[in-house]
Amino acid sequence: MLELRLVQGSLLKKVLESIKELVNDANFDCSSTGFSLQAMDSSHVALVALLLRSEGFEHYRCDRNISMGMNLNNMAKMLKCAGNDDIVTIKADDGSDTVTFMFESPTQDKISDFEMKLMDIDSEHLGIPEAEYHAIVKMPSAEFARICKDLSSIGDTVMLISDGVVGYVEVVISVTKEGVKFSTKGDIGTANIVCRQNTSVDKPEEATVIEMNEPVSLTFALRYMNSFTKATPLSSSVTVSLSNELPVVVEYKIAEMGYVRFYLAPKIEEEEEETKPQA
Amino acid sequence: MLELRLVQGSLLKKVLESIKELVNDANFDCSSTGFSLQAMDSSHVALVALLLRSEGFEHYRCDRNISMGMNLNNMAKMLKCAGNDDIVTIKADDGSDTVTFMFESPTQDKISDFEMKLMDIDSEHLGIPEAEYHAIVKMPSAEFARICKDLSSIGDTVMLISDGVVGYVEVVISVTKEGVKFSTKGDIGTANIVCRQNTSVDKPEEATVIEMNEPVSLTFALRYMNSFTKATPLSSSVTVSLSNELPVVVEYKIAEMGYVRFYLAPKIEEEEEETKPQA
Amino acid sequence: MLELRLVQGSLLKKVLESIKELVNDANFDCSSTGFSLQAMDSSHVALVALLLRSEGFEHYRCDRNISMGMNLNNMAKMLKCAGNDDIVTIKADDGSDTVTFMFESPTQDKISDFEMKLMDIDSEHLGIPEAEYHAIVKMPSAEFARICKDLSSIGDTVMLISDGVVGYVEVVISVTKEGVKFSTKGDIGTANIVCRQNTSVDKPEEATVIEMNEPVSLTFALRYMNSFTKATPLSSSVTVSLSNELPVVVEYKIAEMGYVRFYLAPKIEEEEEETKPQA
Repeated sequence: MLELRLVQGSLLKKVLESIKELVNDANFDCSSTGFSLQAMDSSHVALVALLLRSEGFEHYRCDRNISMGMNLNNMAKMLKCAGNDDIVTIKADDGSDTVTFMFESPTQDKISDFEMKLMDIDSEHLGIPEAEYHAIVKMPSAEFARICKDLSSIGDTVMLISDGVVGYVEVVISVTKEGVKFSTKGDIGTANIVCRQNTSVDKPEEATVIEMNEPVSLTFALRYMNSFTKATPLSSSVTVSLSNELPVVVEYKIAEMGYVRFYLAPKIEEEEEETKPQA
Repeated sequence: MLELRLVQGSLLKKVLESIKELVNDANFDCSSTGFSLQAMDSSHVALVALLLRSEGFEHYRCDRNISMGMNLNNMAKMLKCAGNDDIVTIKADDGSDTVTFMFESPTQDKISDFEMKLMDIDSEHLGIPEAEYHAIVKMPSAEFARICKDLSSIGDTVMLISDGVVGYVEVVISVTKEGVKFSTKGDIGTANIVCRQNTSVDKPEEATVIEMNEPVSLTFALRYMNSFTKATPLSSSVTVSLSNELPVVVEYKIAEMGYVRFYLAPKIEEEEEETKPQA
Repeated sequence: MLELRLVQGSLLKKVLESIKELVNDANFDCSSTGFSLQAMDSSHVALVALLLRSEGFEHYRCDRNISMGMNLNNMAKMLKCAGNDDIVTIKADDGSDTVTFMFESPTQDKISDFEMKLMDIDSEHLGIPEAEYHAIVKMPSAEFARICKDLSSIGDTVMLISDGVVGYVEVVISVTKEGVKFSTKGDIGTANIVCRQNTSVDKPEEATVIEMNEPVSLTFALRYMNSFTKATPLSSSVTVSLSNELPVVVEYKIAEMGYVRFYLAPKIEEEEEETKPQA
């Protein structure tokens, strides 16, 4: 039997909103340590990893490890029916092919339960080794989202290159001692946005902190970065960890419970020459 | 001659917004007692009844009973041009085929008049007898609207059942001593929302009050309930009166003036077995 | 070399939003006196004139007169990437075929530069003589925008008249001693909105001031008036200058820097009789 009671139910709503654009169907893995998910996006380019540790729940009962396949869009629709102050409980009986989401209003005057069919989903769990990164940038998550959105406006995120070849607008993220630079080239021009390290701020989450062991400059498909920023409501700051030829990690911490992490492989140079029109 | 002056003009805007989705064209009946309307929705399933009593108007002159046929969508467009603090006057000369809406700003610096052609509309006035209901639920109107909206998200409001048979997602409203339960079954799962009686609230309009003579459980097309909730801005509470084999009445009171009432027949069981896929 | 630094960068965003609906491509003319634009709308009916005087810039360097052809939609996309408190600098090297917009956040922690290709655009500069107007109406810009929008709702702005002849809904603007009247006739009825002179207001920008030498009544295509009101965020008041057989001037002042002016020829009577269905 599974029964996970989360006082801050709105948090689960935000988690779903942050990943449902990238992933349609996924297994939620439940064990005594926590409630987690690992899934590739539908085009198998980006990886999402979610962890909500058991300690963060008001009540956490998971008799045996189970994996529950869910359609994230449907799950998000149900969670949207929870009030922002509602307590959310996830329940599943052993061997059941359904999961129930129960929402309790703070005053206990309104109790809702939503039952959803589970799915069988093939998935393999990738081991993600701890790695050393050349540069780690921590910055306000709203600022990161704004930059990704602004760069997207410079070119359509999908563009026809030639002979039916479709390309995606790219963002180059470069870290030097001076700061972190985001650059793109689009239909209507080019753009460079530089953020400098800034720790003299009123609130720690407004700081931009750059830890750099080595300068790094990597190219990514901008539309994935934009998808990742759907997690902005989860945390006021975001951490971007960069290393040559390792996937970038874009992490949003979930206060006292865990994280949502997005992994995306950089474009390597040979590829770029093939697909970029004006390299 | 007709001249009805309403200081709280925004109220008339809200009335039109509440009924124009259900009813396209309707006769407004004007007599010495008040300004009223009774109309079936375009699919002849639901009935709308509006009453604005003459005492609620600052000035009310209606020399003889008249019935004015109006396109509610066009009337709503004109009323949208009134400012929220404007005084609205409805004017019609005897025998005229037009009606004029006059809007005066509170400072009298801006005076607008909008003239609209009247229409000939056949309609029969149904006598609605006073009835005894098995259960009457009074609850915050925003809560009722939220519940109807949330249940709608569980299934499309219209769905193909089989062989070209189209069904509408249904809501079952059940009243017991414990509270009122709203249930639905949709494409993505099932949902039950229970609201308990609650009278220990700060403001009387936040109360949920259940008067029950007999338990009752009735099934309705959810999309009509959703339409009725367009009247939510008119009143902070809604009253739902239920009785077996009588139409439900969903009433929004208009402070010191009257009401908008919606009537909808419950689905009877034989019908349900025919049209419901998994009964 | 050109380098124009504007502390209140949001102003340039608002200027672009106000004119990009009417004009697709236009030359910005830069001289020692200021940054200006004059362009016909794409259907060659309305004229836009913009002036930002050099004194309004924090730093203004323009070594020689140049004319820079820009796509206003693309320019607006880039300016949208500026924060509302950002300082905006427009830069162009002599002989360059690009222009650069630089945005600096108030704390200097974020610096963006956006580079856009210039275009060759044929244009002739019309001399607009100073003229005497029969009537000049100064009124709150939001009120003027509301009136244009409300009148538009009374009829589609474009309507089929007969035999494939398309007409535009018109607004008649009449100024008398009593006030200014805006009238229209549409599919669903007629509307008249009268605003009276009103100078006893708390803030001068809330006043409606009518200077009239002679009564005047002129007819215009409503959809252009609606386009002009995109400039509403630039100024809290608007000035409408009317004269028989002269184009109307709709002017939005830009505080301490200049203006955006829209010119539109009135419809003359012979035309009206031909194109209006119920004259």
